[in-house]
Amino acid sequence: MINFAQLQSKFTTLRSNKAFELFVVFVIISSALLVGAKTYELSPLSLTLVTWMDRFITAFFLIEISIRFLGEEHKKDFFKNPWNIFDTLIVTISLVPIDNTDMALVARLVRVFRVLRMISVIPELRLLLNSLIKAMPQLGYVILLMFIIFYIYAAIGSTLFEDINPELWGDITISLLTLFRVMTFEDWTDVMYETMGVYPMSWVFYLTFIFFTAFAFLNMVIGIVVNVLDEEHEKIRKQEAIDAHEPTIADLQLQLEQIKVMLERQAK
Amino acid sequence: MINFAQLQSKFTTLRSNKAFELFVVFVIISSALLVGAKTYELSPLSLTLVTWMDRFITAFFLIEISIRFLGEEHKKDFFKNPWNIFDTLIVTISLVPIDNTDMALVARLVRVFRVLRMISVIPELRLLLNSLIKAMPQLGYVILLMFIIFYIYAAIGSTLFEDINPELWGDITISLLTLFRVMTFEDWTDVMYETMGVYPMSWVFYLTFIFFTAFAFLNMVIGIVVNVLDEEHEKIRKQEAIDAHEPTIADLQLQLEQIKVMLERQAK
Amino acid sequence: MINFAQLQSKFTTLRSNKAFELFVVFVIISSALLVGAKTYELSPLSLTLVTWMDRFITAFFLIEISIRFLGEEHKKDFFKNPWNIFDTLIVTISLVPIDNTDMALVARLVRVFRVLRMISVIPELRLLLNSLIKAMPQLGYVILLMFIIFYIYAAIGSTLFEDINPELWGDITISLLTLFRVMTFEDWTDVMYETMGVYPMSWVFYLTFIFFTAFAFLNMVIGIVVNVLDEEHEKIRKQEAIDAHEPTIADLQLQLEQIKVMLERQAK
Amino acid sequence: MINFAQLQSKFTTLRSNKAFELFVVFVIISSALLVGAKTYELSPLSLTLVTWMDRFITAFFLIEISIRFLGEEHKKDFFKNPWNIFDTLIVTISLVPIDNTDMALVARLVRVFRVLRMISVIPELRLLLNSLIKAMPQLGYVILLMFIIFYIYAAIGSTLFEDINPELWGDITISLLTLFRVMTFEDWTDVMYETMGVYPMSWVFYLTFIFFTAFAFLNMVIGIVVNVLDEEHEKIRKQEAIDAHEPTIADLQLQLEQIKVMLERQAK
Repeated sequence: MINFAQLQSKFTTLRSNKAFELFVVFVIISSALLVGAKTYELSPLSLTLVTWMDRFITAFFLIEISIRFLGEEHKKDFFKNPWNIFDTLIVTISLVPIDNTDMALVARLVRVFRVLRMISVIPELRLLLNSLIKAMPQLGYVILLMFIIFYIYAAIGSTLFEDINPELWGDITISLLTLFRVMTFEDWTDVMYETMGVYPMSWVFYLTFIFFTAFAFLNMVIGIVVNVLDEEHEKIRKQEAIDAHEPTIADLQLQLEQIKVMLERQAK
Repeated sequence: MINFAQLQSKFTTLRSNKAFELFVVFVIISSALLVGAKTYELSPLSLTLVTWMDRFITAFFLIEISIRFLGEEHKKDFFKNPWNIFDTLIVTISLVPIDNTDMALVARLVRVFRVLRMISVIPELRLLLNSLIKAMPQLGYVILLMFIIFYIYAAIGSTLFEDINPELWGDITISLLTLFRVMTFEDWTDVMYETMGVYPMSWVFYLTFIFFTAFAFLNMVIGIVVNVLDEEHEKIRKQEAIDAHEPTIADLQLQLEQIKVMLERQAK
Repeated sequence: MINFAQLQSKFTTLRSNKAFELFVVFVIISSALLVGAKTYELSPLSLTLVTWMDRFITAFFLIEISIRFLGEEHKKDFFKNPWNIFDTLIVTISLVPIDNTDMALVARLVRVFRVLRMISVIPELRLLLNSLIKAMPQLGYVILLMFIIFYIYAAIGSTLFEDINPELWGDITISLLTLFRVMTFEDWTDVMYETMGVYPMSWVFYLTFIFFTAFAFLNMVIGIVVNVLDEEHEKIRKQEAIDAHEPTIADLQLQLEQIKVMLERQAK
Repeated sequence: MINFAQLQSKFTTLRSNKAFELFVVFVIISSALLVGAKTYELSPLSLTLVTWMDRFITAFFLIEISIRFLGEEHKKDFFKNPWNIFDTLIVTISLVPIDNTDMALVARLVRVFRVLRMISVIPELRLLLNSLIKAMPQLGYVILLMFIIFYIYAAIGSTLFEDINPELWGDITISLLTLFRVMTFEDWTDVMYETMGVYPMSWVFYLTFIFFTAFAFLNMVIGIVVNVLDEEHEKIRKQEAIDAHEPTIADLQLQLEQIKVMLERQAK
């Protein structure tokens, strides 16, 4: 058992080595880009080199995760950590052999998922993803609010403008897509000028929509910023509570009480 | 009277149940999307199912708001809360029967307003809306400033560029719309290159306009962020004031005064 | 002299009245929009009404600023306050008669400046403008950095791409405008695809430019936010310093010293 | 040696003089713009004036950096400061003579680099650049995350849409560029409508991509803001630690201990 722990700590040391991390990131990106860009005429040597380094990394991860699994005392607990499941999945996918001539679509998807090994290597990326996932529930309510705004405008839009341009307003779902386009300011005036030909006041529809969505979006951003800052404050406060082994005012009060008792005893 | 209070608390419990909330949100969105997307060939069963679930929710809200109203001791106070007025309105609208063949426009609008039931169900959405409404007065002044910038540029634009393209600059109100388009960067260079053909220096007009509006917009965002952070600080300070049952420096000073008096008495 | 002071305070009271402020803002905006929109067929009555209300406001401001000036003990100091100069200028411009048939351009510009009376009426707008002016020097350095980035890319662009499209890259100043267009993402891919036809690697030029300008812009926004927050903190600290009439630790130390002296005296 | 130090301090005084700084910035910008804009017919006098002022500044920088170098006790340490290397490089480049008729490309590049003298003159620009460089490592991880998102979508896009439009999706690297275009909202609906003709559900591809990149981008901005604010807090805390020469609670406790000892002695 001690053997596994020792091996594991050695692998962890190698893994958290900055130079090794950079090497792995370089190989993964090279492997992804070189294999992806079919049109470039690559020297066979560099292609072979990258392929072999890629295989070495896959082997490294396979051995590393095996040792981590064997080192776990309670095998069941291993898969309670979602990152362990993620790493195992990625390593398994990396072991699927890529054959460029056969089943191109599957081979491509496998290659795509191999890029995700980067998340296994770089702990900072895990932190980023963790914070993204944590922000999700908070985002949920703003997305609902956005949906309400979008739905109301899509319903009005598909009712009024359906006959003007059915390709943009023929249906509530199509109208939702058109409104998303308006929100990104993508040729939105073309959409507006078309409906203004029939309803000259329809600019009100577009301007209020842009105002509401921009406002809801702003609200979301501010909500997330405030949330992040709150967490920061919380962290600082906890740190301060740990630091605070120094005497407090309450300690002083205790001492003053003792002095009073001493004086009272003298007075007697 | 106790009966109503008991019923109300039961309904509140059901309402704040996360699973029930998710179910209601799911039914409202399904109802909104399925009825809206006319072009999809839906199985009659799922349509019927969603329709019945939608009716159940309407009934639930009707009963819930009735109990809330009956449980209110002073009936007049019930409508002092704007959310009660909002809920009553939404429930009333939900009771209007939808007939797809007749009065399509009214039926659509009714359907649109039914989506707003979501705001009645999810307390977090109410909080979001409250914060949006609270930010409004602060926004008002930035909108006035924006209006001044827009008006000055629209006046200059409609004076100088009217003969170049009356469709974009024919009138102050049309110029305002064109400037809004420039602010969203929507094909703004087309507008600029056109006037630069006559006035080669007119890029100054567009660049200063973009600079001023971007600056005013930035100012608005920062204003809101600072406002939100101030509220946060206020909250933290209030929390700290509540927590502060521990001795203060003023308490210590009082004790020291007492000790001095004791010493003086001894000295006599 | 007391007479002026009394009159002035009465005018100030009227001026800071929320209802009066709203009325003035309403009249200024109506006046601006109605006169500006020549194409609308307005009832002569409403036009006359707005014109007369506009004249009333001009008279009010004229009287108010006269009293403020007469009430000032040292006439020289009156024009040391930039807002007084601004108000006097705006009132003077408002007195210029507008003749729609004659000298249309001057009349328009005069009308434009009348909108600025809003800044005279609403103190919150003055605060906003003050904060914009305060942020200016800080912006200056980021604008210089932006200029350096723009200039370097414009020089490279006009050297390499001049022969491809002289309308976009013919000159350093034209290239600067083209780069501003790229920064606003306005049909930037059209510009890029054109040069990629000759230099396939020229996407590097555009992507690095977008990256650097976005980064410098981000830096500016963050700089302003941090600045604003710092000012807020400063304000809070000053407020706390004013609040702090309560005893400090230094006061306690003084008292303890006194107690020690008393004890020493007893010991003798 | 004292001679050099005196000279150096004189040059530093001149350099940090605000009026001199403004003059230098004005000359550099004039020199850059006037020489760059070949099409403008400039009066030969102003051109000669700017050229001579430019030469004066180059001479000033050459002398200044020579004195700084000679004043350095350990010549090796001089090039340990990266800003010294930067300044030396810029001055060396400024000494290269510009001949407009010969080797136009090299002459242009030299002119471009002369603009960078601004960074040598303005200490605030150095601070800005320092903060940009400091933010780099933190950006690195977000860029990696962005790369993963881009790569996955580019792989899927080039697999599915290759036959629809090989100019946009023919290759993974071309797809990456197309996706960057979609991220900037540049005619992204044209790209989408094209693929929706074949795969009607392909809007999911674009909308999820926009959502993920916007989210990652937001995360980056928030990360930088939090980082900047943390640094600010750190600065404030250090400042407070320096200010804190006033008595602490620990000092009071010491004094109380002394009083207790005194009382105990009395009690004996």
